[in-house]
Amino acid sequence: MRLIHSLFKNKEDAFVAKARFVVGSSIKNEDILWATKFFAPDSFPFMDIEGKKIMVANALEYGRAKKEAKVDEVVSAEELTEQDENLPDSEKKGLYRRLFEKYGVDTLIVQPDFPAGIYKFLSENGIIFEFKTQLFPEREIKDAYEIADIAHAQRAMEEVFPMLVKILADADIHDGKVWYDGGYVTSEMLRLVFDTELMQRDCVCEATIIASGDQAADPHSIGTGPILANTLIVFDMFPRSRKKWYWSDMTRMVSKGKVSPEARKLYEAVYEAQLIGIDMVEPGVNFHDIHKSAAKHLETRGFKTGRDENGDPFGFFHSIGHGVGLEIHEMPFARKNQSNILKPGNVITIEPGLYYKGIGGARIEDTLFVTDNGNINFAKTPKELIELP
Amino acid sequence: MRLIHSLFKNKEDAFVAKARFVVGSSIKNEDILWATKFFAPDSFPFMDIEGKKIMVANALEYGRAKKEAKVDEVVSAEELTEQDENLPDSEKKGLYRRLFEKYGVDTLIVQPDFPAGIYKFLSENGIIFEFKTQLFPEREIKDAYEIADIAHAQRAMEEVFPMLVKILADADIHDGKVWYDGGYVTSEMLRLVFDTELMQRDCVCEATIIASGDQAADPHSIGTGPILANTLIVFDMFPRSRKKWYWSDMTRMVSKGKVSPEARKLYEAVYEAQLIGIDMVEPGVNFHDIHKSAAKHLETRGFKTGRDENGDPFGFFHSIGHGVGLEIHEMPFARKNQSNILKPGNVITIEPGLYYKGIGGARIEDTLFVTDNGNINFAKTPKELIELP
Repeated sequence: MRLIHSLFKNKEDAFVAKARFVVGSSIKNEDILWATKFFAPDSFPFMDIEGKKIMVANALEYGRAKKEAKVDEVVSAEELTEQDENLPDSEKKGLYRRLFEKYGVDTLIVQPDFPAGIYKFLSENGIIFEFKTQLFPEREIKDAYEIADIAHAQRAMEEVFPMLVKILADADIHDGKVWYDGGYVTSEMLRLVFDTELMQRDCVCEATIIASGDQAADPHSIGTGPILANTLIVFDMFPRSRKKWYWSDMTRMVSKGKVSPEARKLYEAVYEAQLIGIDMVEPGVNFHDIHKSAAKHLETRGFKTGRDENGDPFGFFHSIGHGVGLEIHEMPFARKNQSNILKPGNVITIEPGLYYKGIGGARIEDTLFVTDNGNINFAKTPKELIELP
Repeated sequence: MRLIHSLFKNKEDAFVAKARFVVGSSIKNEDILWATKFFAPDSFPFMDIEGKKIMVANALEYGRAKKEAKVDEVVSAEELTEQDENLPDSEKKGLYRRLFEKYGVDTLIVQPDFPAGIYKFLSENGIIFEFKTQLFPEREIKDAYEIADIAHAQRAMEEVFPMLVKILADADIHDGKVWYDGGYVTSEMLRLVFDTELMQRDCVCEATIIASGDQAADPHSIGTGPILANTLIVFDMFPRSRKKWYWSDMTRMVSKGKVSPEARKLYEAVYEAQLIGIDMVEPGVNFHDIHKSAAKHLETRGFKTGRDENGDPFGFFHSIGHGVGLEIHEMPFARKNQSNILKPGNVITIEPGLYYKGIGGARIEDTLFVTDNGNINFAKTPKELIELP
């Protein structure tokens, strides 16, 4: 039994427990949203003591938290804090002391992004801290509630993507650009249609990538200005459901007018690499090995990866995919130096890409659910290059 | 001159400087977005050494950061990190060591929400930390660039609010609810119209409050289900511009059908209190004094504040307002125990409210720009109760 020092002056022989601990708002901290399923704009404390979930709610949120939060106990902040209004910051101090006293907690397991101010105060007051890179590794295993919400975002996006294709289909080519309804079609205009239509389906989008020409060759460019005809157009779409706040992620390729033979080869190599990747997705496989297989295929097809004379990267220089959930990029990752063994219940993307200035960029991406013996693709949209006349 | 220990083994006699330091993404950390005006989804380090602004960008963002970030220097992360791929987490360590060496920094000023993992690592390696509640107090003084973006969000919302009023105007009252186009008008439906129309105007909305009846009496309820006729409907609208990511905030009151005399009195008292509040907004005034004046007026008009037998609050139990900027709630605040003296360049809300179960809720809110000798109201929409027949 450990001794608790200054924070628990009278509790030196109390039972002591370890708690996984988060302080955050469900807008900015996906762990607390996942752990409580409670959406609150203001920061609040949450702890998990060997599976027992406890959250603290202020007076304004207490009633709603009791009803909506999927936790074992909601503790009222007022019950824990000093009511003397002349003590400026005493509330918080009183709150933590009484919270940890109430549950006999002396050790907190936190993530590296835990607020340093609270860490410093509590460690100076005798609380022991353990850091863990992933506080809730369980988050990478999705349940039916989560899958349904990812499917909602996916379905909404697949209803709307054809509308963008139709705009391009109905348009004409003028001067190497795309002319529709009295003006040039721009990335911004297509993005506005997409984002607005998704909002109507209760999803929110940020930074939807609609990029053509050399912009498509830079995977961090979201695309600006007129869409260029006869080039590969990357549509990388990732709406977030506003029901339960889960994302989905899909990338498809379109062109207005025929693309060059080089661009078509780029596309084809990526298409093959993506199928190879998807084929490998099953429990027990190392995510990074999928990356390696896709990369090897692209290389075999003659597409090199490296840096040009300006130091800019070309080829396949991002990762094959990532987990998807309350964060658009979350565990599991396909990184080299991490444990990346896929498990049933993972939701991941497979998205190889190739990028060469002067030729363009190609990426194809699906979001997949890892089942007991393989995977299910959330996407129903065909992934052939849509070459519009 | 302080000595730097283990982190700078060979630099014991180097020039040492203090830096305000942030590590975050511009999505989740408004300080780094404000300081760099650079929008990046991934976390990056930024420091300010006596006004000199330095950010670190990874390979994918380096080129764009050089072009877009409003900083004095962009340092390439690759230049700072170990290139040996077998060192698993060495990059980050190498990065901070070389960054601080390069600029002779030994002391970091950080906010309490600074990541504890980095804090722990760096303090164990000889870096001195100073905590400051507001790292960039300058953020509360807005410039023309910021005002323009707040005005954009405000204008968009004022274009759309009348559309919601029109739906209610065109509707009929049935069974104490509001009937339109073959169904009952709900909070969700009005919110969807609002959020979608705002998206078309390049603004994003979350949790727009459209609440009637007793739901309006709970300022944390966003409103669900059918709108109730003959009750006060609170429209608390706060779009965020997607141009520069500034918010604006406005609350107006509507009813479908006449409201009770008690509800009308509630509204009128709030209306008067809001005018009293706005009248007081000028440099040198304590924001909390404005709160006190409004609260006093409401009390004089016979509206008490307290808690009912269930412990639920009633009356005027939130603050008179808050600063608005990259955060919807930011400095200055109207809190009792803080320095709250208004300054030219502040953007704040004035939003008294009254809430009584059985009668309903009323709140009126404007966003104001504090000028050299008074204030300018961003809102042009009249604030009379819109009592629709």
